[in-house]
Amino acid sequence: MSQRANGSGFATAGPDFPDLPEATVARLPEYLRALHNLAEDDQDTVSSEGLAAAAGVNSAKLRKDLSHLGSYGTRGVGYDVQLLIEQIEQVLGLHESRAVALVGIGNLGHALAGYAGFATRGFHIAALFDADPHRVGERVGTMTVRDIAEVEAVVDAERISIGVIATPAHAAQRVADRLVAAGVTSILNFAPCVLVVPDGVDVRKVDLAIELQILSFHEHRKSALTALPAKAVGQ
Amino acid sequence: MSQRANGSGFATAGPDFPDLPEATVARLPEYLRALHNLAEDDQDTVSSEGLAAAAGVNSAKLRKDLSHLGSYGTRGVGYDVQLLIEQIEQVLGLHESRAVALVGIGNLGHALAGYAGFATRGFHIAALFDADPHRVGERVGTMTVRDIAEVEAVVDAERISIGVIATPAHAAQRVADRLVAAGVTSILNFAPCVLVVPDGVDVRKVDLAIELQILSFHEHRKSALTALPAKAVGQ
Repeated sequence: MSQRANGSGFATAGPDFPDLPEATVARLPEYLRALHNLAEDDQDTVSSEGLAAAAGVNSAKLRKDLSHLGSYGTRGVGYDVQLLIEQIEQVLGLHESRAVALVGIGNLGHALAGYAGFATRGFHIAALFDADPHRVGERVGTMTVRDIAEVEAVVDAERISIGVIATPAHAAQRVADRLVAAGVTSILNFAPCVLVVPDGVDVRKVDLAIELQILSFHEHRKSALTALPAKAVGQ
Repeated sequence: MSQRANGSGFATAGPDFPDLPEATVARLPEYLRALHNLAEDDQDTVSSEGLAAAAGVNSAKLRKDLSHLGSYGTRGVGYDVQLLIEQIEQVLGLHESRAVALVGIGNLGHALAGYAGFATRGFHIAALFDADPHRVGERVGTMTVRDIAEVEAVVDAERISIGVIATPAHAAQRVADRLVAAGVTSILNFAPCVLVVPDGVDVRKVDLAIELQILSFHEHRKSALTALPAKAVGQ
């Protein structure tokens, strides 16, 4: 995760952008989803404990995260649901709907193209690309897969700032280079490889095997616990 | 992330399981992948800087992570690639191949079923399940989609310990309950919802819209930087 060098001598982007810990930024979308659920149930206020449980974090961490936004709730009442939704959406920049380009329309690309969450939370997929001539021209939902050769023109015309890479690993760096050259400044990478990008471009990586390996660690630890010799119990 | 209550009075699982920070556990698979790439290139040793660059982290963090495993490298030489691979695989429990059940065989389920990373890094998909009668019986690769009604019997017969949920959100909790009742102790959840599970069951969540929202924060911050008035430059 790198931040654009702005050349102005400013260390931060000003008071609208408190320098939030990356882990806090990562939890804000969880709070937002929980808050939207509460709002749908016509709940006007929520305690920190209630919101923490709905988001699956502990309440001390939640209070600390929200204090970074200047939100402290009201003693005995809790947080105003609508106000907190607005504050978080403001910080995350979700008032605009960002245009996303999706590259690599295999099974995963199809799954991502059909992912309802993209349309409802500040994003819309503006273009689908593939390098395979057999895929170019294919209809996916309401869209048509385009040739990756068109990426520069389309990114410019559709004002796309985010690229999602769902190609095989060997193609991912080349795709990233093209997206960045075309003007994309954030990349979500599903290919199992590390991308090299210039300063000012943010990359987030989702690697499904890595998620499983992290679970494997916990499984392994649990098996070891279960396998402790009986005589050790109570020591 | 919860750890099984072991009832033995042991606070940790013993010397084989140093109590690793969750963030360190999350980075070990990255190091492992980079090390495998180095081994394929016949590299016997690697500096902390070289490995850090290949894994996309900073080298001080890498050295600290590996020191938790008791690996400090050799001054002027670096880390032994094969030895470090073995140490990390040992800690992650990747010497065994764990059986995984995948539930929900839509686009995402198809993508996951075809994901090569699962087969090569300590995992194999042992069963596919869906609740839709139109999907049950469908061939996916070398496997056949089974009825979710069979989940208890299959989890037991195939010794499945990890469940991957790729269903719509409204079905995910019910599926999780069935997997846990059947004996699954780790869940990777792709459905956009928080799962409630008993102590001793680990859940990791992958939410694709949340990854995009985190990128949105960085995009938003970058736009604000770009929009700074010219007269402020140099202040």
